[in-house]
Amino acid sequence: MRILLVGAGGVGTAITRIAVRRDFFEAMVVADYDLTRAEAAVAAVEDPGRFTAARVDASDRDAVVALLREHRCDVLLNATDPRFVMPLFEAAYEAGTRYLDMAMSLSKAHPDRPYEECGTKLGDEQFAAAADWEAKGLLALPGIGVEPGLSDVFARYAADHLFDEIEEIGVRDGANLTVDGYDFAPSFSIWTTIEECLNPPVVWEKARGWYTTEPFSEPEVFDFPEGIGPVECVNVEHEEVLLIPRWVGAGKVTFKYGLGDEFIDVLKTLHKLGLDRTDPVEAGGVRVSPRDVVAACLPDPAGLGERMHGKTCAGTWVKGVKDGAPREVYLYHVADNQETMRDYGSQAVVWQTAINPVVALELLAGGVWSGKGVLGPEAFPPKPFLDLLTAYGSPWGLREEI
Amino acid sequence: MRILLVGAGGVGTAITRIAVRRDFFEAMVVADYDLTRAEAAVAAVEDPGRFTAARVDASDRDAVVALLREHRCDVLLNATDPRFVMPLFEAAYEAGTRYLDMAMSLSKAHPDRPYEECGTKLGDEQFAAAADWEAKGLLALPGIGVEPGLSDVFARYAADHLFDEIEEIGVRDGANLTVDGYDFAPSFSIWTTIEECLNPPVVWEKARGWYTTEPFSEPEVFDFPEGIGPVECVNVEHEEVLLIPRWVGAGKVTFKYGLGDEFIDVLKTLHKLGLDRTDPVEAGGVRVSPRDVVAACLPDPAGLGERMHGKTCAGTWVKGVKDGAPREVYLYHVADNQETMRDYGSQAVVWQTAINPVVALELLAGGVWSGKGVLGPEAFPPKPFLDLLTAYGSPWGLREEI
Repeated sequence: MRILLVGAGGVGTAITRIAVRRDFFEAMVVADYDLTRAEAAVAAVEDPGRFTAARVDASDRDAVVALLREHRCDVLLNATDPRFVMPLFEAAYEAGTRYLDMAMSLSKAHPDRPYEECGTKLGDEQFAAAADWEAKGLLALPGIGVEPGLSDVFARYAADHLFDEIEEIGVRDGANLTVDGYDFAPSFSIWTTIEECLNPPVVWEKARGWYTTEPFSEPEVFDFPEGIGPVECVNVEHEEVLLIPRWVGAGKVTFKYGLGDEFIDVLKTLHKLGLDRTDPVEAGGVRVSPRDVVAACLPDPAGLGERMHGKTCAGTWVKGVKDGAPREVYLYHVADNQETMRDYGSQAVVWQTAINPVVALELLAGGVWSGKGVLGPEAFPPKPFLDLLTAYGSPWGLREEI
Repeated sequence: MRILLVGAGGVGTAITRIAVRRDFFEAMVVADYDLTRAEAAVAAVEDPGRFTAARVDASDRDAVVALLREHRCDVLLNATDPRFVMPLFEAAYEAGTRYLDMAMSLSKAHPDRPYEECGTKLGDEQFAAAADWEAKGLLALPGIGVEPGLSDVFARYAADHLFDEIEEIGVRDGANLTVDGYDFAPSFSIWTTIEECLNPPVVWEKARGWYTTEPFSEPEVFDFPEGIGPVECVNVEHEEVLLIPRWVGAGKVTFKYGLGDEFIDVLKTLHKLGLDRTDPVEAGGVRVSPRDVVAACLPDPAGLGERMHGKTCAGTWVKGVKDGAPREVYLYHVADNQETMRDYGSQAVVWQTAINPVVALELLAGGVWSGKGVLGPEAFPPKPFLDLLTAYGSPWGLREEI
């Protein structure tokens, strides 16, 4: 397997550090808009022999196609922010390589009833091309980070092994991370966090299909495992709600994120002031996207690992029936920042995102996972994935709730 | 009198609309970095005969000197934001003209104890040049808007006419303005509001001199007149605290601003995220000041008059002794947005700021106010000012508090 990894930010860099310890691939080209970032990622791996740094503009489809061909890559792993999903997805199709990402094509709110009906949904643009990918015998596997990704694998595992019937699947994400020395320091890309938290959250119900609500709706306190404890979670737009119902039978699918009051207040204020906008404004004689300025004012989350303490938990809560009795479980994966920093030099949140596409690539390289078309993580057998994740030294947990 | 008005924003434009009705001056040159703004201000006055539009960069001292000389101006009125105080103040000195502004040279927090001790204070740079101005026989009159400005005149009036001894002078500013159609729309320059509200507030006490506190300190509810009612006010850095003690005897001088919880929360969030910063950051391939981006995302306060409702009150509360009995008064000036829009086409907050320098210019033109050096509004006899303000059709009020 010859991999083109596009994006050498926090997640991309963690991918190289995880992948270097595995021998399933022959080459990994690490490409970034900023060549020095790609070079730094390559220079930091223990044994850089199979790694090459390159410069590429992820929005330039032709340049990406040329790079895939130049290095004879057979898979493109997209570790950029979601703005670049479509050009990279299309470049992989054109070059005839497989494609993986960790966030799907962007949504667009309903023009008249944004908080009731869906407009363009997350991933719609990618699913629209599914027949073409299938016809070409090619596989696109979108949403294979931790959430979406591992959370979807958990949903499929629950359906296959733990339940006869599922009433609700609720992805729940919470953490107790703190960052020394900063008043406010998000642990993940603020660009993406703004996007997912301020867009109308999407919910799926069997009888109703997909629909939206107001941002930060339906708060609930969820008790996270391994010492994280109770965190208030709210509805957030996330890929799992779009992916899971396509392959897993359930009455309802939700995603709730443990943002915390302070973060919600910050996001509401950014929105109130128009600072979440991505279209450029004229300021001080230049044109600039306000959301890019917000990101530039905050510390780079990938660089905060040394100052960060605590754990982050991603997981899938499932409620249903097994052998005639009600059952409720929470399948989860916890990353401890002290451990990910010690073992990989990557902070917990980006590391937890990065490990999953490496596991998926290894399953694809070995033929354990295969397919054609545009298929979510829940379209594949879940057990090999969970077993290989454990073999990577990163086990998952199951908590019986009742 | 030949006036160079620098700055054709909200306040500058309102100045032209107020001044055009008075005959004390021969010419007013309206200069702005953006010539179209200057031209629009001139085009909008009822009788533009005495007005000329010009382009000037307020940070370019030599260009300002040249403009003053070209138009034979004998006074410079600065209606720009406080970043441009020093180049304009120095240009006026060099050209040998009088100088007026509505905000003083900027402060710089104490490097080690910002919330206890003053570093560089508001106006320090201007007062440092006082001897030079005096030696040259020239007058600089800084801080002659509404606050500082009219509020300082009130303080001097109280000392001269209402009290034998003053315990405390507290400038108090509150409003009940609302703006239709916006979640958040400041009624005054957000650049200046951030500057004054996030800097450490300054307080003066006779025994202690000037000192600072944490932002938003010592909240109190002040009951504003003419239907505005009670508003929570907090300490804010403001020129009056630096000006009043130099000319008026008092035990203590404070400034409190009725910001409201929502505004305080927005300001705290901007600070937490570093979006109040003025030094440029690199974002999206350009260098830009985050505070300029915040300003660019919000509506121009000068253009909100049509959607604005309510009143704004500026005033000075004084506590002391008269004829052996305790006395407390609030001297105030209210601007009603419906009236200022109807009569001048300017929204209440900028109009209330703009009327005071015009009154001051008329007093200087007639020789009623005169002096040399760097003198605050409280250095001059207050009654002619208050009488002329009333003659402009904009009376002030006095409320006995006990």
